[in-house]
Amino acid sequence: MAQKPSIPKGTRDFTPAEMARRNYIFDTIREVFRLYGFQQIETPAMENLSTLMGKYGEEGDKLLFKILNSGDFLRGVDPKLIEDGDCLRLAAQLCEKGLRYDLTVPFARFVVMHRNDLQFPFKRFQIQPVWRADRPQKGRYREFYQCDADVVGSDSLLNEIELLQMVDEVFSRLGVRITIKLNNRKVLAGIAELIGAPDKIVDITVAIDKIDKIGLEKVQEELAERGISPEAIEKITPIITLSGSNDERLTRLAELLADSETGVKGIEELRTVMDGTEALGLRADLELDVSLARGLNYYTGTIIEVKARDVEIGSITGGGRYDNLTGVFGLPGVSGVGISFGADRIYDVLNTLDLYPAEIQGAAKIMFTNFGPAEATASLRIIKQLREAGIAAEIFPDSAKMKKQMGRADALGIPYVGIIGETELADGTVTLKDMTTGEQTSLTPEALIARLS
Amino acid sequence: MAQKPSIPKGTRDFTPAEMARRNYIFDTIREVFRLYGFQQIETPAMENLSTLMGKYGEEGDKLLFKILNSGDFLRGVDPKLIEDGDCLRLAAQLCEKGLRYDLTVPFARFVVMHRNDLQFPFKRFQIQPVWRADRPQKGRYREFYQCDADVVGSDSLLNEIELLQMVDEVFSRLGVRITIKLNNRKVLAGIAELIGAPDKIVDITVAIDKIDKIGLEKVQEELAERGISPEAIEKITPIITLSGSNDERLTRLAELLADSETGVKGIEELRTVMDGTEALGLRADLELDVSLARGLNYYTGTIIEVKARDVEIGSITGGGRYDNLTGVFGLPGVSGVGISFGADRIYDVLNTLDLYPAEIQGAAKIMFTNFGPAEATASLRIIKQLREAGIAAEIFPDSAKMKKQMGRADALGIPYVGIIGETELADGTVTLKDMTTGEQTSLTPEALIARLS
Repeated sequence: MAQKPSIPKGTRDFTPAEMARRNYIFDTIREVFRLYGFQQIETPAMENLSTLMGKYGEEGDKLLFKILNSGDFLRGVDPKLIEDGDCLRLAAQLCEKGLRYDLTVPFARFVVMHRNDLQFPFKRFQIQPVWRADRPQKGRYREFYQCDADVVGSDSLLNEIELLQMVDEVFSRLGVRITIKLNNRKVLAGIAELIGAPDKIVDITVAIDKIDKIGLEKVQEELAERGISPEAIEKITPIITLSGSNDERLTRLAELLADSETGVKGIEELRTVMDGTEALGLRADLELDVSLARGLNYYTGTIIEVKARDVEIGSITGGGRYDNLTGVFGLPGVSGVGISFGADRIYDVLNTLDLYPAEIQGAAKIMFTNFGPAEATASLRIIKQLREAGIAAEIFPDSAKMKKQMGRADALGIPYVGIIGETELADGTVTLKDMTTGEQTSLTPEALIARLS
Repeated sequence: MAQKPSIPKGTRDFTPAEMARRNYIFDTIREVFRLYGFQQIETPAMENLSTLMGKYGEEGDKLLFKILNSGDFLRGVDPKLIEDGDCLRLAAQLCEKGLRYDLTVPFARFVVMHRNDLQFPFKRFQIQPVWRADRPQKGRYREFYQCDADVVGSDSLLNEIELLQMVDEVFSRLGVRITIKLNNRKVLAGIAELIGAPDKIVDITVAIDKIDKIGLEKVQEELAERGISPEAIEKITPIITLSGSNDERLTRLAELLADSETGVKGIEELRTVMDGTEALGLRADLELDVSLARGLNYYTGTIIEVKARDVEIGSITGGGRYDNLTGVFGLPGVSGVGISFGADRIYDVLNTLDLYPAEIQGAAKIMFTNFGPAEATASLRIIKQLREAGIAAEIFPDSAKMKKQMGRADALGIPYVGIIGETELADGTVTLKDMTTGEQTSLTPEALIARLS
């Protein structure tokens, strides 16, 4: 029985036109990574579940795609788990392996396993798909790509500066106007110290984040509702209402957090990173944002988030500094800083703004028609020379009707058609048709190659 | 508790040095695919099991990696299957999805699902990993890459000729000397007709294949053991002992199979493909091999196999013509021809013969030392210009001891080190150290950029 085929929900096929666009993005990111001396690694799609479990919280454990053991997978399984329908614990007995959920945990495992062969500081990049059993929805997929660059084994803030330059360069090359938001975990710790409520950091940042939308009074109300004392609200009000240039804000913040050693350290770091980056010339907007609070479970210093200025979409790139990448795998003290480009969101941004260059099509530059064996043979000889000159060329494989052959070139966006019919065969020429203008020119093979080179 | 991490058996991490080598191979193959007008697609790692099951035989079904359903995967499962320990049928209830086993079945599904958006003849290439729960052993992995190019929707033998040119071009660029072996399924059918034993084709080809090793007499004995009648053995002996040039063999074969319409058709096809390919100039050896019998379940015309001449290893590329790619998914009559480069074996061949160009390293071209903030800032300004000129450059992020810094450049194979110390800072120069010769030169930033461009 013939099946009507489909693909798992939340996954995608990519057609040639889509691949051309995606490759343009990946190639741009990869090229910038390389220019900055980052080196590529790859890790297997499947990791041992023991590597993955417990690294992404309870919810993350559930979102891992688990691979059923091969062969007699029931052997040794506790029958009580089946009886009780305890799927979560049963899964751990039925499956030894899972699909990677992000690139960070596999990278940490990689660093530990290969630590004797690596040069530290180790600057690695990795561009691979990850899988999450999330509920699929618009813009959220079960298979998507991450593009990560990390420097591990160095505490220098030069790394932050270089990562920000890379972000700037990637989006500048792609033609996407961005705002880079910066914060530092130590500043957030300083604020918590200031008000004596370290557990309220998230509440505070959520409230600060709303100041532009709902105004100071409402923010203060919300803070009170979230259990922040009136004294604390008074103390942080100047932080909530911080304004002016980055420099002015940093200066004011330094006064407000003067009593917190950690806070002062955070401000110094921010200043070094911002000044250093701007001194080298940045095209992106760089903005201090004390409400930025991503990755609080692991970031210990710089926090980075990138927003597209011309499209309403979440963060398109993010990153930060951590001081314990590999402790869970028995190698303490590996600190570093990294950045992750959200390829699928960047793809959405470029699609929305239609920012693709015309020449990325991916089809051949010239298609030769086919009017029979003798004409085809003559065409193939020229095609061979074209390819030797680096020009992508093809021949219509069957001697079909002219209209059908031209239709192919048209549909694929092939800009030129080479025609060898009886006349051309006799006098050793090619008729070149420019598919954009419709213009036809009679050329020698040499002239044709020169023209398309 | 800290874990000692590992990866699933049969899978691999790729370090930067390994990635540089693999990228060299993939980039070469991809570039040739593009020059011939093939367009890239990608399909999801996970396919519905209904798409995959039954496509690779019973053994293949067992070798599929199956993904446990999320959530309450026991719901609706037949308890009797658990009781009976019927793992094979139980797996089909516990899992809806599996990892792709090859690129051909996903491609067939893709063609059916996207048939209204595709231009036929459709020339697609696809370079992605596949997964098989095979017993891991030397050179056989559970995750490995396939690089496939197919033309579907065309019966023209020009496609075969172009695929052979592509094979020739890829291995010529990689510097691997190869023999391309060619056969045609119709010739095998003709032989079966000749002796009236179509079910013995495999036995016959296995025996023919041994002629060089064990001699005619032993081959004849073996054929008898395999149940071929003495009359049949007599009839096929001239085929087993076929010798001379391809042309001589084809001529002799045409005489021997003159009574089989199918056989004659096969010989004509072989002649067209071989003559057409050789007329365009082939660097590889092209060899008619009537013992070549791969893919008998699906190939209907040309059969292609590629061997490395300087390394003892199985086939490194293979392919052939089929006339029903998508029938199982409800779309009959889609014929085509394809080729699959075995990336992991090609990687082994290049490693064995050490055929990698020196410049593929993948590390930066120049590393700047770091003797403190002022020196680093001056270095970063020059590094920025180098990168704008397309030169991969980095700075040692910490102001560590000179020896440690130089050690990094040395270990990573970075060919140049740029040094800015007190003197250089004062007079605005850079000292360039050539890591190969040890030579040091004092240069202006402009001269440095010119030198490395």
